[in-house]
Amino acid sequence: MTDDVPTRDDLLMTPIRMLDVSDKVTIGQLMEGFANTSFQARRLSQCLSIYERMLDHEGEFSILMGLSGAMVAAGLRKIVSDLIRSGYVDVVVTTGAIVYQDFYQARGYRHYRGDPNSDDVLLHSYMIDRIYDTYVDEDKFRETDVFIGRIMEEIGGGRYSTREFLSILGSRCINDPDSILGAAHSRGVPVYCPAIADSSIGIGLATAYKRARDEGKPSSDVFLLDTIRDNYEIAQIVHMSSGTGAVYLGGGVPKNYINDAVVMADMLYGEQDGHEYAFQITMDRAEWGGLSGSTLGEAQSWGKILAEATHTMAHVELSVALPLIAGAVMERREGKPRKGRRYTWDGDSLLSI
Amino acid sequence: MTDDVPTRDDLLMTPIRMLDVSDKVTIGQLMEGFANTSFQARRLSQCLSIYERMLDHEGEFSILMGLSGAMVAAGLRKIVSDLIRSGYVDVVVTTGAIVYQDFYQARGYRHYRGDPNSDDVLLHSYMIDRIYDTYVDEDKFRETDVFIGRIMEEIGGGRYSTREFLSILGSRCINDPDSILGAAHSRGVPVYCPAIADSSIGIGLATAYKRARDEGKPSSDVFLLDTIRDNYEIAQIVHMSSGTGAVYLGGGVPKNYINDAVVMADMLYGEQDGHEYAFQITMDRAEWGGLSGSTLGEAQSWGKILAEATHTMAHVELSVALPLIAGAVMERREGKPRKGRRYTWDGDSLLSI
Amino acid sequence: MTDDVPTRDDLLMTPIRMLDVSDKVTIGQLMEGFANTSFQARRLSQCLSIYERMLDHEGEFSILMGLSGAMVAAGLRKIVSDLIRSGYVDVVVTTGAIVYQDFYQARGYRHYRGDPNSDDVLLHSYMIDRIYDTYVDEDKFRETDVFIGRIMEEIGGGRYSTREFLSILGSRCINDPDSILGAAHSRGVPVYCPAIADSSIGIGLATAYKRARDEGKPSSDVFLLDTIRDNYEIAQIVHMSSGTGAVYLGGGVPKNYINDAVVMADMLYGEQDGHEYAFQITMDRAEWGGLSGSTLGEAQSWGKILAEATHTMAHVELSVALPLIAGAVMERREGKPRKGRRYTWDGDSLLSI
Amino acid sequence: MTDDVPTRDDLLMTPIRMLDVSDKVTIGQLMEGFANTSFQARRLSQCLSIYERMLDHEGEFSILMGLSGAMVAAGLRKIVSDLIRSGYVDVVVTTGAIVYQDFYQARGYRHYRGDPNSDDVLLHSYMIDRIYDTYVDEDKFRETDVFIGRIMEEIGGGRYSTREFLSILGSRCINDPDSILGAAHSRGVPVYCPAIADSSIGIGLATAYKRARDEGKPSSDVFLLDTIRDNYEIAQIVHMSSGTGAVYLGGGVPKNYINDAVVMADMLYGEQDGHEYAFQITMDRAEWGGLSGSTLGEAQSWGKILAEATHTMAHVELSVALPLIAGAVMERREGKPRKGRRYTWDGDSLLSI
Repeated sequence: MTDDVPTRDDLLMTPIRMLDVSDKVTIGQLMEGFANTSFQARRLSQCLSIYERMLDHEGEFSILMGLSGAMVAAGLRKIVSDLIRSGYVDVVVTTGAIVYQDFYQARGYRHYRGDPNSDDVLLHSYMIDRIYDTYVDEDKFRETDVFIGRIMEEIGGGRYSTREFLSILGSRCINDPDSILGAAHSRGVPVYCPAIADSSIGIGLATAYKRARDEGKPSSDVFLLDTIRDNYEIAQIVHMSSGTGAVYLGGGVPKNYINDAVVMADMLYGEQDGHEYAFQITMDRAEWGGLSGSTLGEAQSWGKILAEATHTMAHVELSVALPLIAGAVMERREGKPRKGRRYTWDGDSLLSI
Repeated sequence: MTDDVPTRDDLLMTPIRMLDVSDKVTIGQLMEGFANTSFQARRLSQCLSIYERMLDHEGEFSILMGLSGAMVAAGLRKIVSDLIRSGYVDVVVTTGAIVYQDFYQARGYRHYRGDPNSDDVLLHSYMIDRIYDTYVDEDKFRETDVFIGRIMEEIGGGRYSTREFLSILGSRCINDPDSILGAAHSRGVPVYCPAIADSSIGIGLATAYKRARDEGKPSSDVFLLDTIRDNYEIAQIVHMSSGTGAVYLGGGVPKNYINDAVVMADMLYGEQDGHEYAFQITMDRAEWGGLSGSTLGEAQSWGKILAEATHTMAHVELSVALPLIAGAVMERREGKPRKGRRYTWDGDSLLSI
Repeated sequence: MTDDVPTRDDLLMTPIRMLDVSDKVTIGQLMEGFANTSFQARRLSQCLSIYERMLDHEGEFSILMGLSGAMVAAGLRKIVSDLIRSGYVDVVVTTGAIVYQDFYQARGYRHYRGDPNSDDVLLHSYMIDRIYDTYVDEDKFRETDVFIGRIMEEIGGGRYSTREFLSILGSRCINDPDSILGAAHSRGVPVYCPAIADSSIGIGLATAYKRARDEGKPSSDVFLLDTIRDNYEIAQIVHMSSGTGAVYLGGGVPKNYINDAVVMADMLYGEQDGHEYAFQITMDRAEWGGLSGSTLGEAQSWGKILAEATHTMAHVELSVALPLIAGAVMERREGKPRKGRRYTWDGDSLLSI
Repeated sequence: MTDDVPTRDDLLMTPIRMLDVSDKVTIGQLMEGFANTSFQARRLSQCLSIYERMLDHEGEFSILMGLSGAMVAAGLRKIVSDLIRSGYVDVVVTTGAIVYQDFYQARGYRHYRGDPNSDDVLLHSYMIDRIYDTYVDEDKFRETDVFIGRIMEEIGGGRYSTREFLSILGSRCINDPDSILGAAHSRGVPVYCPAIADSSIGIGLATAYKRARDEGKPSSDVFLLDTIRDNYEIAQIVHMSSGTGAVYLGGGVPKNYINDAVVMADMLYGEQDGHEYAFQITMDRAEWGGLSGSTLGEAQSWGKILAEATHTMAHVELSVALPLIAGAVMERREGKPRKGRRYTWDGDSLLSI
């Protein structure tokens, strides 16, 4: 046996401590207690401590956060925008549904409490769309589609990264203190949406595209989202960081894209290390073989996460997990903002930070 | 369309409210916020409000709590014993592993923080047993087995319900303020363990059984656990209650048994209604067809839960879910105990409450 | 680096082979194809090959099979009884629900195709019980309860292991070629049900218990199920085997009991090794910390599965997984029975095999 | 009670039939047996019968198939290409990883059998990438990246839908009879990849993008993937179909996009009905609120699936589920091809079918 093998005493070192919630306990205290328990509670506390280690890096260190799942329907919008405003996130990668629904809410429209066992055919006849146990107002969705269409017509043609486009949408949300896009715009946090075509925004853009074709306009007059330029941009961000941390809230494209950003930086600029810290909250599993549930260890084999990285995964649904992690972070830091990074772009080139 | 069909306005009535955790938030406040969000967070808050409705019933109303899964390893022992001490539970149905490990800890032994990716063969060589991400000390387990054996020898032969037997074990735990068995003994809360043979306790009893056979002792001299008598007892408890509520922490035999208790009461005494309130915390699912994950609606078809009952199910792992629910209950009630029920037994007959 | 570390070529050795199902494929061929694919398909084929290795042991080697979940409702009864009849199982450990529903079907009663989204209150008013997407006839259940009660009255008082009792029930099922209990009785395969009190059978016994109490009969006149004697019996079976293999169809008490059988044998007779082969089919997961989903590696730390054992776990629901595994076994062996073990009992002692 | 309420006899109509696998059973026979059983086995047989109903529509009816998850690593590539070749699929929507890995295999490179508990740091040092229990050769990946880069350089600048681009890649795969892209190219089946930027292909394109920028080339010289044009195209396909059916193998962007295609057609051309048939294979769940696991009923509230549609969902991992469904389809149809649709494009306009 070599020195690497732990002794019996090494292994029986740290007793599990019973959690005590009998006396008014704050989120921060609860998460501290979780650190000495087991199973997913301990995992949540590990996510918290990995996040805090990222936050302790100031300056050139970038925190990339992936958002997926129905976070706006879940009432998590303010929490995410608070994290952005506090400088606890440097780059956001998300789905079209999340940015669209954030924008919809910034216009004053709402999600409503619904029933997962609803009569969906009745809902359809009412133009009510269901998201598990919430409802949205299809009429207001259409109004929002038209509104986004008008914004794009004002802009006219041109070739935009999704960051540029979402920053424009964000500029219309700055009066809503709880908007994700609004906070990102104000704070200078880039928001990427690689699959934006697959969303109500993409549908709106397709309508504009058809109109242009019908009117015989040249391609160049059509508003164009260039997702390959997104790749070029995010590669620059990663390359110009002293290190990176990945926060995956859910899986899907945002998780994959945050991982691929490392490979992009490596291919474009060379010698890129994987993320130094990473944690994921997901209900998905590795056993099905898909990317969303794959372990962060698996990402290490690809070099997307550093061999020496600290990482973990918690299997607690986001509507419960995120308030616990974000609440504890804010409680411990007493709202003290992190400086974070701020990006300036000249066209699609990152000028300074 | 009849009046039963909701209007569009009925459905778009209650907006989802964004959760705010930016300013020190207690568990009680968090759970209150969860009520206006979605998905599993809302489910957790529904579990809480169902539990509170049970607790508001005083007197003859009985709350039956099923415990399964590795709750002691998860550090949840104190929370359960606090609930018992506060009168927030009237009857416990559990697994052999939980009562055994509670007893083990009451003797001063511990569970230790471990690694789910341990070298299990090394652990075995060290006589360390792993429970996911915790370790227990097999040496201390064996010492505990011998200790339980000695208790049974002191008792001698006889036929016991598991409640009687576990009350005897509980009487040895009263000096540990965090013991589940100790709290139940002190408080007069019956603890049933229908599958007790399937546990270290059952192994200890089998050893005694063999010794008796080897020594040629008559059966009557052998300590006997009569689980059918358990059925008889729990049927009486249900029958003599003005109503019942079911709290299923996990699934398994404890869930099924709490449901069957209603059928038992009906078969033995007639005219028994199902549980009036019920909630379950589980990661299991209905789609696999098993009892543990079956919906509480399914239990209504069997009459085990009342047609009019309020019930829900939350899919959040117990190490996270129980502290949130129990913490909120204790915070809101400020530790004010519920009177609860107290049982006196004459043999296996329930005398008075 | 030591010799233990594989080289790159070692790792890139065996290509995944694409599955071809374009030309009429049998279950056996499909499972053979699965061996060269990935994820749960590969796992299923590993379960099959572990099972076949167990079956290749003749003579004193014992295969213990745990049954849990709603297997009778799933239409899997004939498959299990075929396995028993072919000598592919030596010992069965199961739940009360499975043996009860097997008995119910042996009386000519049926499960019916139902809808998981049924109106459970309507079902209850019809005395129809729902098991996910199947229905059972509560009237016929009650008739069956009364019938079991009468069998027990014929037997009179006495102390029985669940094996003895279930063998009696099985003797009433031998005319049904598809009955699990009938096949086990005919073949001499012991069936254990550690949590039998927690079932319709337990409810029937509780009724008898109450009647005896009401009539003032002495305890000794009451039919008694002695689950500790079960422990004593199964410990003998394990002790007198040259080796053991564990097949866990689902988790729950049957899984735990088959593992504990090893510890029982060790405590009663000493020097007992863990199971040499083991596989489990389950939708449960290790991450929740419970026994049902715990890895078979975890069982190795406890010594319940041998350090050198071949073991695996497949996450495919049993209604799909069992037909694939059992079908492939039967196809490959062309129905050729295995000798298997046959047990003779003198009281609760295993006489010969 | 109205006539809508079923009677007791209505409900207890169709007995569950026990499955018999004792005599050589083909996939087709097994799936037929599953129809009379329960739980996920019955669900799989329902998926099959919904698929067959789609296939019975000839001519203008379009079957859209979403592919997600690590299907190539799972060895499912040949099955998908066989379905395409047989005309059992009219439109494919997929992820970048699937088309990239299909292309990688078409070049003669392989996935290898691996271990989910590998030492990922060792793998990384060997340039081996892990996908759960399979390995791929990072060297060959890089070679493939370079190769794709060269293809794009040959093509030069221009604005392509992902369908056009993937058809070009597919033209390089036609010598591999098992290639998904090759079969789609040969058969004229359009393949869409809305999140193509988020893949090795996207990384390759970003490299070309940077090179063009560094060389000061105008944007117009850069190869551009226009995913909004994808939207325009797929809307035309849906609009010009007499009806549509959706086959979701996994969830993710492909599922959402196939649903959104209906909304796109409605927004661009009006009066579009939802999919008439739909089934999904997924291990994800509705309870987490995300799109991947959302029920197909939920999609009906959005009008993406027709109110009258036949739909179901099976929770069996794809490596097992797809061979069963595809195998049964091919066995029953004896390889007889369906005519299916064939698309001709003039630029981005669908000319004829």
